[in-house]
Amino acid sequence: MGSFEFRLEHTDPSGARLGRMRTAHGDVDTPVFAPVGTQATVKAITPALLAEAGVRMVLSNTYHLYLRPGHELIRDLGGLHRFMGWSGPILTDSGGYQVFSLGELRKITEEGVRFRSHLDGSQHLITPERATAVQEALGADIIMAFDDCTPYPATEDYTRQSMLLTLRWAQRCLKAQGNADQALFGIVQGGMYPDLRRESAQRLVEMDFKGYAIGGLSVGETREMMFEMADAAIGFLPEEKPRYMMGVGTPVDILDAVRLGIDMFDCVMPTRNGRNGTLFTRRGKLSIKRSEFASDPRPPDEECSCYTCRNFSRAYLRHLFQACEILSSVLNTFHNLHFYMQLMEGIRKSIAENRFMEYYSDFVNSYNGE
Amino acid sequence: MGSFEFRLEHTDPSGARLGRMRTAHGDVDTPVFAPVGTQATVKAITPALLAEAGVRMVLSNTYHLYLRPGHELIRDLGGLHRFMGWSGPILTDSGGYQVFSLGELRKITEEGVRFRSHLDGSQHLITPERATAVQEALGADIIMAFDDCTPYPATEDYTRQSMLLTLRWAQRCLKAQGNADQALFGIVQGGMYPDLRRESAQRLVEMDFKGYAIGGLSVGETREMMFEMADAAIGFLPEEKPRYMMGVGTPVDILDAVRLGIDMFDCVMPTRNGRNGTLFTRRGKLSIKRSEFASDPRPPDEECSCYTCRNFSRAYLRHLFQACEILSSVLNTFHNLHFYMQLMEGIRKSIAENRFMEYYSDFVNSYNGE
Repeated sequence: MGSFEFRLEHTDPSGARLGRMRTAHGDVDTPVFAPVGTQATVKAITPALLAEAGVRMVLSNTYHLYLRPGHELIRDLGGLHRFMGWSGPILTDSGGYQVFSLGELRKITEEGVRFRSHLDGSQHLITPERATAVQEALGADIIMAFDDCTPYPATEDYTRQSMLLTLRWAQRCLKAQGNADQALFGIVQGGMYPDLRRESAQRLVEMDFKGYAIGGLSVGETREMMFEMADAAIGFLPEEKPRYMMGVGTPVDILDAVRLGIDMFDCVMPTRNGRNGTLFTRRGKLSIKRSEFASDPRPPDEECSCYTCRNFSRAYLRHLFQACEILSSVLNTFHNLHFYMQLMEGIRKSIAENRFMEYYSDFVNSYNGE
Repeated sequence: MGSFEFRLEHTDPSGARLGRMRTAHGDVDTPVFAPVGTQATVKAITPALLAEAGVRMVLSNTYHLYLRPGHELIRDLGGLHRFMGWSGPILTDSGGYQVFSLGELRKITEEGVRFRSHLDGSQHLITPERATAVQEALGADIIMAFDDCTPYPATEDYTRQSMLLTLRWAQRCLKAQGNADQALFGIVQGGMYPDLRRESAQRLVEMDFKGYAIGGLSVGETREMMFEMADAAIGFLPEEKPRYMMGVGTPVDILDAVRLGIDMFDCVMPTRNGRNGTLFTRRGKLSIKRSEFASDPRPPDEECSCYTCRNFSRAYLRHLFQACEILSSVLNTFHNLHFYMQLMEGIRKSIAENRFMEYYSDFVNSYNGE
């Protein structure tokens, strides 16, 4: 009956949760952050370096892999784990958010979403059944129900219809699922309406998914609204199932979400920032391209023990960035992933010791920024 | 005086030589191939991966580092080794070939070469004294005399004047050298005229450099001419000094040059080809972008034990290339460097066992291409 299990190990006085997920590709301690490997690679980083950075789980995007190189090809080559050389747990999204992001290029009906490929303009139809089948071909450990991401702003009536559509699609995904070894998660929608968030959560829980994601956030709302919406749903999610806040976020976002009881995160933030020359440090973000670093012999983060910080100066990393060298992306991304992994490890340790809020305060006090 | 030493260990019946260089940054067995790290990085590869590929020595380009980030900056940060995080031996060129390649942007006089930067058009003058001082600031283990690279084709008279200028500049470099720990090599010129090559070699040898390079090749001449010119010089170079064929080359070029008694090589071939999706294998070059590899589950080279070949399929590497992923450059370059290092190791082993020509034939028989 499926190899996925989640065990809630401990809850800190703040509400922050420590847990452990068991998957066919190994265990994962939560709260966990999964770097994004959109096209079956975490950009610029080998699987060996991912492991060295402390990464335990990665996310890959169904929409992108469906279009290129194709999910059937990946299935025929032994699945996504073998294809990308990553033996740890993998999570795939459903493609719902990705087709939502296509804007003008997509059309939503009861059946599913018709869209044009961003690569070649070819026409496609993704339905809940198809999204589930594609994710089954990819073979991730955790897969997501196909959802309709509500735009922001939207009227309450529109949001309710969209949320109900996501519920009907969620039911179709459950029915379509062919491989019980994959943990299918439902996605809470409901836009910026707390009552709709609650209703979405309650009705998804009735369907009994392996875990629950909070979707439809980071679509233009304020930070306060985002957390209000997450909070509105979480109270109706079962204690014993993992909770996943999709596409989040900054270090401080993650701390705030953990405080609400969230267990899982993914975001392009460490990788995209790395490629853009922005490094996360315990004191805040550092833009390596700034001229003040041209002759700075210090590592990016003097408190960091990663390969990048142990071996290279800000001056060198600035030079690599200015010279458009590929190694710039490699070293910066590696540092940022290591930073995020250290953050998650610090979070888990502090929860285990019932001092999450102390960790939270210490971090926020020294960290300049979000 | 100085920490550089070269010891000729053994000469194979073919004339191929096995040697060992001692530098302040460790020993290097020869024949050796140095990957090119133009801007203080072997493109796409961390120093840790260089070491894992078996790389012992890297080349960096004085011209590029002089312009960006500046040799004085690198000196103030502790020198090139520390700057780029490479603790093994480093070789720098003199910038002579690089300014030669600027074409219209440079003007040669007795004093040196005036040129405009390819980055911002700013005006510069590089003299033999300046080239030596810049290389001293960078702090490489092996540095090169500033030479005038003769274009091809050129008349015998022009070539002779150019060769004589290189000799006068070589003398000025010797005189300008301030750090005896750096091994200064002279560069044989003489275009495509064997007598001029001989004269250049003989007169450089009289000046007593730590080693000798064959320069001014791969400028448009045929492969046969290239080896004829190298051969014309080698006979006049001392047995006990290292011989370096600059900018060479393909695997078969290297084999042919080793047979002539060359000890050192550098070339962008493994790195540039890797970024362009071309992989070296024991059967020849393989263009990973070809559609026939779209679903090929085999590694790039089934006889290879490198990280790339142990973990990834041709199908995956093709996907990475098609998707313009940075990891494509990382994995392909790593494989190609590993291939070149295996080639050099095979060469050295076969010389030690007096069977270099057997190794040569085996390689050439199975390798389809140059």
